[in-house]
This record gives sequence, C-alpha cells and structure tokens, in this order.
Amino acid sequence: MTSPSATQDSYPYQNEPIWSRSEKAIARKAFDAALGQELHEVIQEAKKMANEIQQSSDLWDLEHYLTQRRKGIDRKYDFRGSRLTDVLGRLLYENRLGEEDLRGLPEEKMKSIRSFAQFLRGGAA
Amino acid sequence: MTSPSATQDSYPYQNEPIWSRSEKAIARKAFDAALGQELHEVIQEAKKMANEIQQSSDLWDLEHYLTQRRKGIDRKYDFRGSRLTDVLGRLLYENRLGEEDLRGLPEEKMKSIRSFAQFLRGGAA
Repeated sequence: MTSPSATQDSYPYQNEPIWSRSEKAIARKAFDAALGQELHEVIQEAKKMANEIQQSSDLWDLEHYLTQRRKGIDRKYDFRGSRLTDVLGRLLYENRLGEEDLRGLPEEKMKSIRSFAQFLRGGAA
Repeated sequence: MTSPSATQDSYPYQNEPIWSRSEKAIARKAFDAALGQELHEVIQEAKKMANEIQQSSDLWDLEHYLTQRRKGIDRKYDFRGSRLTDVLGRLLYENRLGEEDLRGLPEEKMKSIRSFAQFLRGGAA
C-alpha cells in the first residue's frame, strides 16, 4: 500500500538509527538540559551587552549577536531521529553534555555519538 | 555631452527641490538631533527589555524589537536631497522635531515639509 512517492521520500532515511521510546526519553532529557543551559548563557550575555551599550553600534552589535545565536541554536537543536546521533555528538563535543547524561543508551548509539564528537575534534572518527 | 542613459536616470528627479549648502546645514542639524534622540530611545528600551528577560521568548522579542527599529530607522533617516522634504515632514509629524528646529529654511520648503506632515496626519495636504 506504499505509494511510490512515499517509498522515494523515505529512501534516504532507511539506514537511520531507530530510537526506542526509552532511548528518546534519555536523549530528550540531555537535549533539553543542554538547550536550557545554552539559552541561559545567551540571556546572561545579552543582559551584559545591553547593560554596557553606550552608542548605537553597541545596539546593533547586540542585535547581530542575538540573531547569530538564534540561528545557531535553531540549527543545532534538531530532535529528529535522523539527526539525533550527530546532534548529541555535537553537544558532547561542545561540552554541553557529558557521557554520563546519556547513561542508559545502548553502546552502539554511544559509539556513533562519540564518533561524531571525535570527528568534530578533527581526530579520527 | 549628456548621454541618453544619464538623461534617463536623472529624469524622475528633475523637479526635486534644490537644497543650498546653508539649507542643508539647517536640515542636517535637525535631522541629526532627531536621529540621536530616536537612537537614545531605542537604547533605553533595549536596556529595559534586556533587564526584564526571564525566558527565551523574551530574548527573541528583544532581537525582533531591535531588528524592527533598525530597519525603521534605516528607512526613515534618508538625507538625500530628493527625499529630504518628506523625511523632515515625517519627523515633524512624529514630533521628533519642531518647526523651530527648521528655522532659517525658506517658506517654500517649510510649506512642503508641513504639507507632508499634514498628509501623514491624514488631513488635507
């Protein structure tokens, strides 16, 4: 009953890792904590920058900073299953989460996550 | 010696008001004062908004506010001679300057400026 277009759409993802409900719950907790921490950092920095504004260029620097951080956060925090291994790997690489935050994930997924973090460090994947 | 394309380019502006050097100096002073005041307002509001940030939506509200004000300011403060009458009329309409700030401009220009302010008020131009 699968239409050709549906088959085609799903094709690139047929090798994507499958996340069980309990694995997703672990990932979600670590993901949300990292996002919350990153947002907290941006809020603190924005308050500091705003407090120090003296001239209009400082004002537009703040706007630029916020835009860049918003875009970076939007790109980084993608919870789709097809992206999750890389997303968690990047958060590990950025020290926004530790391996202990992912305790309970199967070793196979941990290996993929570590491997992507290692790749970002510029080392062997 | 005027090339056809130059004639064509200048055509829409052939009726634009000519601003003498001394008139431009008067306009520039009023224009700069209004711009400085508007930037000061945005800086104060940005500091206040930043100070009151509690959650990420407040952060992106600040970004959005700054983007809108920057775009509005860029559009509004156009010192080209072809636009200056309307620009000063708008600043008059917004009470960002008073007629006394334009003292020294010839009555013909004041009439055009007042007329545009009146148009923006929705009255007869």
